[in-house]
Amino acid sequence: MTRTEDRFARAWAALAGIGRDEATGGYRRFAWTRADLELRAWFAGQARQRGMACEQDRNGNQWAWWGDPAPGAVVTGSHLDSVPDGGAYDGPLGVLSGFLAVDELREQGVRPARPVAVVCFADEEGARFGVSCVGSRLLTGTLDPDAARGLRDGDGVTLAGAMRQAGADPAAIGRDDGALARIGTFVELHVEQGRALEAPVGVATGIWPHGRWRLRLRGEANHAGTTRLADRRDPMLPYAAAVLAAREAAGRAGALATFGKITVIPGGTNAIASAVDGWLDVRAPDDGAVAAVVAEITAAAESSAVAHGVDVKVSAESYTPGVDFDGALRDRVAAAAGGLPALPTGAGHDAGILSARVPAAMLFVRNPTGVSHSPSEFAEAADCVTGVRALGAVLEELACR
Amino acid sequence: MTRTEDRFARAWAALAGIGRDEATGGYRRFAWTRADLELRAWFAGQARQRGMACEQDRNGNQWAWWGDPAPGAVVTGSHLDSVPDGGAYDGPLGVLSGFLAVDELREQGVRPARPVAVVCFADEEGARFGVSCVGSRLLTGTLDPDAARGLRDGDGVTLAGAMRQAGADPAAIGRDDGALARIGTFVELHVEQGRALEAPVGVATGIWPHGRWRLRLRGEANHAGTTRLADRRDPMLPYAAAVLAAREAAGRAGALATFGKITVIPGGTNAIASAVDGWLDVRAPDDGAVAAVVAEITAAAESSAVAHGVDVKVSAESYTPGVDFDGALRDRVAAAAGGLPALPTGAGHDAGILSARVPAAMLFVRNPTGVSHSPSEFAEAADCVTGVRALGAVLEELACR
Repeated sequence: MTRTEDRFARAWAALAGIGRDEATGGYRRFAWTRADLELRAWFAGQARQRGMACEQDRNGNQWAWWGDPAPGAVVTGSHLDSVPDGGAYDGPLGVLSGFLAVDELREQGVRPARPVAVVCFADEEGARFGVSCVGSRLLTGTLDPDAARGLRDGDGVTLAGAMRQAGADPAAIGRDDGALARIGTFVELHVEQGRALEAPVGVATGIWPHGRWRLRLRGEANHAGTTRLADRRDPMLPYAAAVLAAREAAGRAGALATFGKITVIPGGTNAIASAVDGWLDVRAPDDGAVAAVVAEITAAAESSAVAHGVDVKVSAESYTPGVDFDGALRDRVAAAAGGLPALPTGAGHDAGILSARVPAAMLFVRNPTGVSHSPSEFAEAADCVTGVRALGAVLEELACR
Repeated sequence: MTRTEDRFARAWAALAGIGRDEATGGYRRFAWTRADLELRAWFAGQARQRGMACEQDRNGNQWAWWGDPAPGAVVTGSHLDSVPDGGAYDGPLGVLSGFLAVDELREQGVRPARPVAVVCFADEEGARFGVSCVGSRLLTGTLDPDAARGLRDGDGVTLAGAMRQAGADPAAIGRDDGALARIGTFVELHVEQGRALEAPVGVATGIWPHGRWRLRLRGEANHAGTTRLADRRDPMLPYAAAVLAAREAAGRAGALATFGKITVIPGGTNAIASAVDGWLDVRAPDDGAVAAVVAEITAAAESSAVAHGVDVKVSAESYTPGVDFDGALRDRVAAAAGGLPALPTGAGHDAGILSARVPAAMLFVRNPTGVSHSPSEFAEAADCVTGVRALGAVLEELACR
């Protein structure tokens, strides 16, 4: 086992127990919870054992510095939080790889011409408060601080209340040009989340546009055992039509469309539903394809709704335009790592948010099963170590040349 | 306003506030909850103000006696519990009409040759523990007491625990031949639950066979934004196929089939589900038609499941054979009430459970909209009063002749 492999295994083991649900084996690392505070302590410990100055900015993002903080730094990192029952790699692999890449460079005697930082962005998944990339959106000013403070979790706790509870100051959040100016270049390493990458490591071309829509279907509650079919106004039927249409429309458009969340009122076995709400996630290579898929699904829901006397309303809950990462930076990153295949992704990332303000790039580590957002998310240790070395080469290129 | 109309209005008003959800206007009267205990106190109060001896049997059913309890009594009644967001009439109309029919007979100076009782059966809807007609099934010995004690609600509370919490003794439940022997004849009055009855009051021919099936669909949780369509094992797709197949199969068979309850794991907008469980309610004029509809829906789910790499298991959670009420008793009841139209129903009732052990009959009160199991369930007050008078005439016929 090389030193990097050994360090990877030990640091990985220290992270493994934090926020893990013993029943499912998945992670429940949500913003400003106790698990989040344990992760912050882990990050600070990693910085401390490397003699890197550690700070938490006004928006809850953590920074570890090799060299004095200053404008033009080369910054790498990702996030440590998770979706409900998430996997171990989505996020943490990028943060840990940042620290290990610093170790690699130091062992090689590299002396950066610019400061290097490892960052951990707060609340990337949005699992608790429903908005993703909160830390990077606040930093770059694309999320209004008042709106952020008022976000509520499933128990009605506001983000402001949760921050205070965790010892952070919600009054201080918002656009932070000082912190942003220090980022000369940002490179995020992340586990790939499909099976599109066949090499151990790749570089991102861009992020697909993606959004969430809510289908509100309203019929009439009634007794399942006595209401004639002709007298029914059952919203479950247009929901089902929309689910099947989503798959067909996405297939035709080379897109992705998913119904993964539904609420049914009243939700009894012997009651025809009065209301069904379904949430639709759509992603595609371009805005036009996303719009076409959503229009096709909406039409299918409406057609079925008319046939069954159901009211339907489709509304966008969020929409994130596509990102094309800086082509010159991408080529430089790929070359520094010895030549890497390039691929797009359908998943949102902090690098996508930052790319609107600073040059940003992403490295992906191969995902052999394509599984992500699941306890069985996995990457080979050898590929992770290859990722650390590629990231080290990229940081050296960016910090020394 | 006649005395009966006035009494109906006052007693109805006293019931209206118990277990009502202010947000929906629907009732949430679930077994052994605080609302249930309030309903039990209401029943005991109705008995007390009429000088009727009130008792609660070992299975939680309440009895109010006009005359001394003895074998061969004429018993009427129904239930007071509700489905989630249920209506005001389903159940309570039958219990209240029983008390008001006793008032009618007393005012007419009727002196019954046999004791008369009003009964309220426990947990008819099965909304909390998933099994319907628990009180009458336990009484007649068609529900195993150990199985009943182990039933769990959505929070994991057992029926035994809920009974203890409510001050009842779960060790005492089970077949009660003493209580059963007292029932000479049982007549249940109930609001009609479809639009099949055009007269104010009708008499039941029988109850359709009906059952509940659970579709367990197991796929693989994954990221909605990165997992290629070809790599997905999404259990929502066979669920949707089953929902649409249910409607078509029921239409062809002259049956009813409904999906009104679903659980999705993990249930996130950006996560392909790993597990979808859907509950199916099927009713038809005969056993063969029920089986054919379930088989067709199962085949549709299996076909889609195979196409999408999903595992599917369909299991019956309950099945209640059809009931043909005693024809001679039905004719006697109809004649006593001055001639009534006869009709079947797709809804299960305590009278159907009891009919296996004692002569039983049902009266239906017209439902002008056909809506039931809904906050907007409704019957005209004039029809309800006509129902009380019909029930009074039937009780007199059965108790005096």
